[in-house]
Parts: sequence; C-alpha cells; structure tokens
Amino acid sequence: MSELALPDYDDVAAASLRIAGYANQTPVLTSRTANDWFGAQLYFKCENFQRMGAFKFRGAMNALSQFTPQQKAAGVVAFSSGNHAQAIALAAKLLGIPATIVMPHDAPAVKVAATRGYGGQVVEYNRYTEDREQIGRQLAEQHGLTLIPPYDHPHVIAGQGTAAKELFEEVGELDALFVCLGGGGLLSGSALAARWLAPRCKVYGVEPVAGNDGQQSLRSGQIVHIDTPQTIADGAQTQHLGKYTFPLICQNVDDILTVTDDALVECMRFFAERMKIVVEPTGCLGFAAARDVRETLRGKRVGVIVSGGNVDISRFGQLLAGQDQR
Amino acid sequence: MSELALPDYDDVAAASLRIAGYANQTPVLTSRTANDWFGAQLYFKCENFQRMGAFKFRGAMNALSQFTPQQKAAGVVAFSSGNHAQAIALAAKLLGIPATIVMPHDAPAVKVAATRGYGGQVVEYNRYTEDREQIGRQLAEQHGLTLIPPYDHPHVIAGQGTAAKELFEEVGELDALFVCLGGGGLLSGSALAARWLAPRCKVYGVEPVAGNDGQQSLRSGQIVHIDTPQTIADGAQTQHLGKYTFPLICQNVDDILTVTDDALVECMRFFAERMKIVVEPTGCLGFAAARDVRETLRGKRVGVIVSGGNVDISRFGQLLAGQDQR
Repeated sequence: MSELALPDYDDVAAASLRIAGYANQTPVLTSRTANDWFGAQLYFKCENFQRMGAFKFRGAMNALSQFTPQQKAAGVVAFSSGNHAQAIALAAKLLGIPATIVMPHDAPAVKVAATRGYGGQVVEYNRYTEDREQIGRQLAEQHGLTLIPPYDHPHVIAGQGTAAKELFEEVGELDALFVCLGGGGLLSGSALAARWLAPRCKVYGVEPVAGNDGQQSLRSGQIVHIDTPQTIADGAQTQHLGKYTFPLICQNVDDILTVTDDALVECMRFFAERMKIVVEPTGCLGFAAARDVRETLRGKRVGVIVSGGNVDISRFGQLLAGQDQR
Repeated sequence: MSELALPDYDDVAAASLRIAGYANQTPVLTSRTANDWFGAQLYFKCENFQRMGAFKFRGAMNALSQFTPQQKAAGVVAFSSGNHAQAIALAAKLLGIPATIVMPHDAPAVKVAATRGYGGQVVEYNRYTEDREQIGRQLAEQHGLTLIPPYDHPHVIAGQGTAAKELFEEVGELDALFVCLGGGGLLSGSALAARWLAPRCKVYGVEPVAGNDGQQSLRSGQIVHIDTPQTIADGAQTQHLGKYTFPLICQNVDDILTVTDDALVECMRFFAERMKIVVEPTGCLGFAAARDVRETLRGKRVGVIVSGGNVDISRFGQLLAGQDQR
C-alpha cells in the first residue's frame, strides 16, 4: 500500500463515476435564518443523508470497488468503532465482499448491531489490553484480507472528495469551504476538489479544540501526535494525521480552526430547530467554525460540509434538552 | 365568506401557480430501512422543510395572494398559537400586508417571538376568560381586516392540497396516502389532489386516538364536536371539522385512522435516528398509522405527508431521550 501515489483531482473524478448508483447524491440545504445571521450565502452539503448516515460510505465504496477479483474473494478487514465500520460493511455487502470489522468489546450495542446488520463479521477486542491495528494486520495476513484504514489511503481520500465535488458542481464557485477534520480523509479529498473546481476558494479544516493535532501539525510542518482527545466529536478523536492526508492538507488547505464542544452543541440545536435535520457532533464542526468567524464572511458564498448524522438518539435528545452530563 | 364554493382540483392547481416562487417545493425522502420493514415502497413528502417549518405556509400564501387591493391595504387577522400564526405572518410579510395575530397570553415565548420575527403584530388574550374567535372577529370588523381561519376556508384548503399534488407529480400513482388530520385543511386538500391525480389511491386521514372527532364525524355522517383533546400532537387538538372540510372529507377520504401518543414518539425517534430529520408530533401521525397497518401495505406504493417540524427543541430532546413527563 505504501507504494500508492498521493491522489489528485483525477482520482476524485474517477471515484465519482465508481460510486455513482451506490452513493446518494446528497442534498445541499440552505437556511434563510443562517444567511441573515451571517450576512452571507451558506450552502450545507448534507452527508447526514448519505447511505449509512455519513460521508464515510463514499471512501469505502471507492476503495472496495477497486479490489481485484482475488481481493474480493478473500475479503476486507477494517478496524473502527464508528462510521468507517458501517461504511465498509455496507460497501462490502453491496459488492458481495466478505467483511471483517474489528471493534472494541465495549462498543455501543447499536453500532455493533448496525455493522452486523450490514452483513459485517464483528471481531471484538479489549481496547484496554489489545492493539486493534495489530489484530487487523494479523487477520489480514492470516486470511489474505485487504485492510482498508479509515482515512489514510488514497482511494479513501479520493472517495471522500466526491462530496465537495458535488457541492461545487451544484452551487458553483465558493469563497470559503469549512470541513471537519479527524484523520483528514474528508478534508484532504475536499481540498483536492476545491483546488480544481474553485481555485480561489479558501479551504478550512475544523477540529475540536481538545484535539488540535491537525492545527499543530500544519503550523509546525510535521505530523504531531496527541493522546485521544476528550470531545463529543467522536469522529474527530484521532491522534494524528496520516502520511497521505498530511501532505495533501499542507498543499491545499488554507488554515485549520478549532471549536469548543459547547459550540458544537449550539450548532446541533440550530440544525435541529431551524433546519429540521439531525447532525452528529462531528458533523457540526464546519458550521461552528464558520459561525465563529462570520464577521469575515459577510457578503460571501460559503460552503459547509455536514459530515454525518449518526448519533445515539437518546444522547442526541439529552444534548438538545441541555441535560447532557459532559 | 360563507358564499364561497367548495374547492375542487382546479383550485389546487391554481394555488400551485400562485405560491410558486414563494413556497419551497419540498423534498420527497425515502428510507431503505422503512421500505424493508414494511415490504413496501414509502414516499415521505417532507413539509418540515417548508418555509416556516410546516405545510401551513401553502394555504396562507394561497389565501393572502387572492386579497383585493383594499384587503391588502387593510390587513389580515388570524387567531392561532401554532403554525397557522407563523404562516399568516410570513405570507403577509412577503406580500406587504399588515398582519395581526391573536395569540394566548401564555403562548410559548418562542412562538410569539417567531410570529413577531415575521413582522406580525401579536394581540394577546386570556385563554381562560376570553374567546379568541370573538376577538378576531371584532378586530376584523373594527379595522376592516380580513380574517383567515386556520383550516375551514376554500383558499386555505386548496393551498394545502399543493403538497400532495407535488408528491404525485414527483413519484407517480400511489396505492395509499396517509395524511394527518386536525381541522381537515391538509386532508381535504390532499384528497382533492389524490382524486384527480391518482384516482385509485386510498386516502387515509390520521388523528390522535384522544381526538378522534374526525373519525366519529365520518362514521356518523355529521360533524361531531369534542373537548380539546389531550395529545402531544398539538396541531391536531382541534375540536371539530369545518363546514368546508367535512363534506370534502366525506366525498374523498376512504377512512380515518387513529394512533396513540406513544406511537407518535416512536415514529419521531425513527425519523430522527434513521432518516435524520426533525418531525413534530403532529407530523408523525401519517407514518404512525401506516406502521400500524403495514401488513396490508406489502408490495404497495405508499405516500406519507410529514406535515411539519416545529417543536420546542428542548421538549423534542426530552421525547427522544425518553424523559418526557406526559
């Protein structure tokens, strides 16, 4: 895998064709209330309406559809407790590929059930005593499975870039694009699309303030590792950027901003109350950062990628009701 | 007003043209999960994405855009504590018509603020000692205002029918259509659209079991009055059908079904968890009834009108979290 080249825009365009008919072309929503508030025109690319509820399906589908017949027959393995697990399981099911997903033994039952519901075989590990990457690699070696990592893979990155590609194709050039940042798959893919389709568009990655490894990395010029950050944005609890995502971000991203968990909850409420959509905490990162810098956006055309809507519904309810014990 | 004729499909078609450019053509969402569960193909017409968050804007816009210049100059008056108030206020603002809204003095501050935010002048009354209809009529007489009732008016009914018209035009014929029922504006308008565009489609109205005056009325052949029903479906807390809606429902509706408040909460959770949309309790009526009779819908094409998404967001959170004190 290490010999794969960094993806470019052609790979994003090719991914679009590969996932067509499988992935949803998600809606771009607008809000008069948000526009009035910002004095700008905002376009929300709503990946919470993507299949399995998040953009991750795009990258998984793009990666798995490039498997050789031998790889397809042997199967795929992934380690994830979140959206990547379900994305791989669903893409594998659609392509008739056996999928093994390595999940922590204490993962939420609903996520394990969803992954199994998509036909994935779940292998549990103890997250306190075992190393999931090692388990994944062992399974891959023993059974000839192909390991697809959650973000640091050119095919995954190219697939994630198709969301921003669709956005630009639907609404035209933008002045700024705000994208949530965990490991950088969505951000680096989005930035490729922006550089080609809207060269003057500023591209911002957005992290939780508790997990600003990306910001530190971009500013220091090297990949900074941090401990697992404490944040409600569970999709952004990554510890470091990857060897593919980091150089792409350095080349194509203008800046990385950070937001607080409180800001994420406020944006989640705005999405529910004013736009009638359910957005997971990680999916609120882009809007929260745009809100913080809205004075600089007056009169501009602004894109926001809403990355997903997979949140435990009781917890979502508690957050909306202001009863969350964080 | 009493001399206006019952509306027919031509009035619905004319309303479509009148509200075009003002009302949103709302999306029709589908859910693989719901389809698999029902063994049917479901189409959800999502009026929670309508302007001001509910279908009511259609009827208000259709009614106000037929005002004479004299009526426009004098203004409109409406009595409502719910979506009709905001619908009239917004439609009036867009058409440059002064709007007076009679609301209970203890209406939720957020609703009063929303109505004022759309430019409506709010007149408060004491709901325990005063009669809002009388206040509305007095205001109308004293100031030459035109009173637009929330459902029992041919122009309101015709406007509400445009949602179902859009649904049939987008997805084609259906075998069954489920529509929430309060005073019957949406149901009677939807049934007009169904009779013309999908003559074989069964049309069902759906009420909360606690407020089944519509069901009693249809079955007894006369308008039955009930006390204000206790239900979380605040849009269906009407006490009786109207002189326009009742005959239209008798002519064009196949049956009226009832559902429990618990079923509404379960459907609200389904919408949030699986479809990532916020639906108010009243907006869940259609889906809840379809769910109850899903065995009869196998292999069929089924339409569900999701009427709105205006729910206090803290209360919505409590309902999702299972912490509601009903």
